[in-house]
Amino acid sequence: MKNDLDLQNALKTVFDADSALYQNRGFQRRIGYGTRPAVVNIDLANAWTRPGHAFTCANCDEIIEATNRVLKPARDLKIPIIFTTTAYAVTEGPNTDMGMWGRKIPCETLRLGSEAVEIDSRLNVRSDEHIIIKKRASAFHGTMLAGLLRAADVDTVIITGTTASACVRNTVEDAIAEGFRPIVPRETIGDRIAGAIEWNLFDIDAKFGDVEPVENVVRYLEGLNGAPRKAVE
Amino acid sequence: MKNDLDLQNALKTVFDADSALYQNRGFQRRIGYGTRPAVVNIDLANAWTRPGHAFTCANCDEIIEATNRVLKPARDLKIPIIFTTTAYAVTEGPNTDMGMWGRKIPCETLRLGSEAVEIDSRLNVRSDEHIIIKKRASAFHGTMLAGLLRAADVDTVIITGTTASACVRNTVEDAIAEGFRPIVPRETIGDRIAGAIEWNLFDIDAKFGDVEPVENVVRYLEGLNGAPRKAVE
Amino acid sequence: MKNDLDLQNALKTVFDADSALYQNRGFQRRIGYGTRPAVVNIDLANAWTRPGHAFTCANCDEIIEATNRVLKPARDLKIPIIFTTTAYAVTEGPNTDMGMWGRKIPCETLRLGSEAVEIDSRLNVRSDEHIIIKKRASAFHGTMLAGLLRAADVDTVIITGTTASACVRNTVEDAIAEGFRPIVPRETIGDRIAGAIEWNLFDIDAKFGDVEPVENVVRYLEGLNGAPRKAVE
Amino acid sequence: MKNDLDLQNALKTVFDADSALYQNRGFQRRIGYGTRPAVVNIDLANAWTRPGHAFTCANCDEIIEATNRVLKPARDLKIPIIFTTTAYAVTEGPNTDMGMWGRKIPCETLRLGSEAVEIDSRLNVRSDEHIIIKKRASAFHGTMLAGLLRAADVDTVIITGTTASACVRNTVEDAIAEGFRPIVPRETIGDRIAGAIEWNLFDIDAKFGDVEPVENVVRYLEGLNGAPRKAVE
Repeated sequence: MKNDLDLQNALKTVFDADSALYQNRGFQRRIGYGTRPAVVNIDLANAWTRPGHAFTCANCDEIIEATNRVLKPARDLKIPIIFTTTAYAVTEGPNTDMGMWGRKIPCETLRLGSEAVEIDSRLNVRSDEHIIIKKRASAFHGTMLAGLLRAADVDTVIITGTTASACVRNTVEDAIAEGFRPIVPRETIGDRIAGAIEWNLFDIDAKFGDVEPVENVVRYLEGLNGAPRKAVE
Repeated sequence: MKNDLDLQNALKTVFDADSALYQNRGFQRRIGYGTRPAVVNIDLANAWTRPGHAFTCANCDEIIEATNRVLKPARDLKIPIIFTTTAYAVTEGPNTDMGMWGRKIPCETLRLGSEAVEIDSRLNVRSDEHIIIKKRASAFHGTMLAGLLRAADVDTVIITGTTASACVRNTVEDAIAEGFRPIVPRETIGDRIAGAIEWNLFDIDAKFGDVEPVENVVRYLEGLNGAPRKAVE
Repeated sequence: MKNDLDLQNALKTVFDADSALYQNRGFQRRIGYGTRPAVVNIDLANAWTRPGHAFTCANCDEIIEATNRVLKPARDLKIPIIFTTTAYAVTEGPNTDMGMWGRKIPCETLRLGSEAVEIDSRLNVRSDEHIIIKKRASAFHGTMLAGLLRAADVDTVIITGTTASACVRNTVEDAIAEGFRPIVPRETIGDRIAGAIEWNLFDIDAKFGDVEPVENVVRYLEGLNGAPRKAVE
Repeated sequence: MKNDLDLQNALKTVFDADSALYQNRGFQRRIGYGTRPAVVNIDLANAWTRPGHAFTCANCDEIIEATNRVLKPARDLKIPIIFTTTAYAVTEGPNTDMGMWGRKIPCETLRLGSEAVEIDSRLNVRSDEHIIIKKRASAFHGTMLAGLLRAADVDTVIITGTTASACVRNTVEDAIAEGFRPIVPRETIGDRIAGAIEWNLFDIDAKFGDVEPVENVVRYLEGLNGAPRKAVE
């Protein structure tokens, strides 16, 4: 697609110029991996990963495959694995749990209990993995996530999922604010509009978390195998 | 019971002396009722309201009756009504959502999906009322409650339920911290140990919210009938 | 500058295409103005608004002028006005208040008490306006802002300042999550890299808050003059 | 004082009976010490520790001495040490930062910048120790504390100061909710009304944190000397 190629070229040019300024100013540092990771998978539910929904994203087959590449060694390590979905119990009237967000985006299509908000079956959620039902963009906002991770002695949060321009980005911003090291495996991140992944991952990598090739993240997790995570007790 | 009477007398003596100091120092002020209330019912689920559980409280028939007295006019007004329960998806192993709390109290008996953590059927929860599953004592901590109330333009939070010495008190503390006016109808509050209701309501009334007879709260809500709550739109 | 024009053209093309998808899907809704606004000015301190700092942004003369256009009617209305700055008490050693953020961006240049972190004198902060010293990107994260706004009965948060790609955006995301209506006067927003303002305001307007011409915001505030904000009492 | 002795006897009787129920039900567990502690000293500022203020507490000489016993080994270990104070920039008018709390207690006497809200000089705050200015009871509410502790890799929070019935208790409740292990050295805790320390420490120990003799806490900290805290890097 010519337009897409033009956009990619334009973005590459601007990112190169912007990176020069950032490097000169002391941004784009590496936060680095810690020793006690968790994996937080953002909104990899059917409304985002399957066709035909208002929230449907592009290239979800690849995103889910990449996410499964991360989950494999994470499950071997028995580290905390969390999935989020966004769902609402009351989508009409003044007492809705959509809050103000339903005034900007089509939250009313995300009904609690519907198939749309279930985690994509290709990710094979296990019974000891957590599903957090969130109401806002960030997986930390109005949820138990920070308390759960802190109690599990986590220092590094690997974040996958959708979308780059909303829930993933906002989760990364909150993760570093809460004192965790956010790591974003690039190939696991999705969105629905052209350019959104590129721009938001550029901003994230400059200021909020390390954007890494999925193979680096997998290698990091596999490398922890011989040095099992410190028990809390 | 002689011991109980002794305790009540001892508490009355100390509260009188303490109130004299507080009044002299400028504590125990009235926060007052606002104009846009919500009702938040804390942990009126079977594990607290029915016999035979680790969390079972005393006098729950009276507490539920008093709570229903508050709910009646609240439902007529169609103001936001929220019920909380405390429940855990993973009660074993390092990745539990009990966090550190399971190290202090028997959280492991509160399994998500069990009958124990369902709201007591005598309260007749309706489909447009919210059930918030919390993991910690405060109904605000790690939940969407503050965002929900703010988006619904609430300024006053009427708090009922159990227990005075943990979830009710902590919810009141957070309610005023978040900028709401907490109102506690005395007869709707329960606990499981002697003296806990008296002491905690004394502390709450001195510093965090107005403890009121249930009839005052009912009269306040009925008085709003002619002056319907301002719509958000 | 040719590159800049190319970028603007490329961005316009992609935003047009992306908007078509968003409109079709039910995004880019208008959240609208409420009736009880506050103004929150993000990081309009010398380190961002004056030359020679790591955090220096472009076009700050225009940004401050536009912000003053918003502040004039806000001050006439006596609505809450808040300024934030980002500053750190301990910038070395393991016990720093920079948290993990100093590992991504040059927080160590923002010393508490230095001239760099003072609000730009051209904004003439008054004694009844609040200065919040934050540690993270969002003005809500780890601050009293949500409680302050809720207690002041605010429903609409007008957000100005720097930078579009970090603190402004993250504040807007949190504002809507907390249940406020975020309004962003376009001409008051700054950044330091090409394209960052455009892209981030595009994402914000699609999902988190209404991006408005400054003259609309001024007209809205002036229009409240005859209908003064409801007192809390 | 006869009344005080009567109260202590009445409280001992009720705590014995309540403890029997709690033990039978599985409450009053030991949370235990972790390996990476911090010390958080609540409101040991002049308005609480010196005579003549609305907030003045009893027995502050002993409380400060006991707190200094905890601080000595903590400073030797170079672990994070945080002091809080409660202070307000705007104590009149609708835009106050006292929020709703000024409607319950005399917040208006706690002016930012006054000698009253300075940390008691007998504690010798050092330049690498943090002073957090909070607006609410909990040291976590509306502050950077959770993020600071998480980034410093803390798992255990030793909490000292005033008052048992408000700021100390609410901080302990939030500490465990956030996933930390709260430890309360009994002799370091103050209040201003009879019975408040006893009752609130009883509730805390039953449900939120371990109340310990100060000598145990000192011994724990001294025991870490040979096993220095893991560096974050």
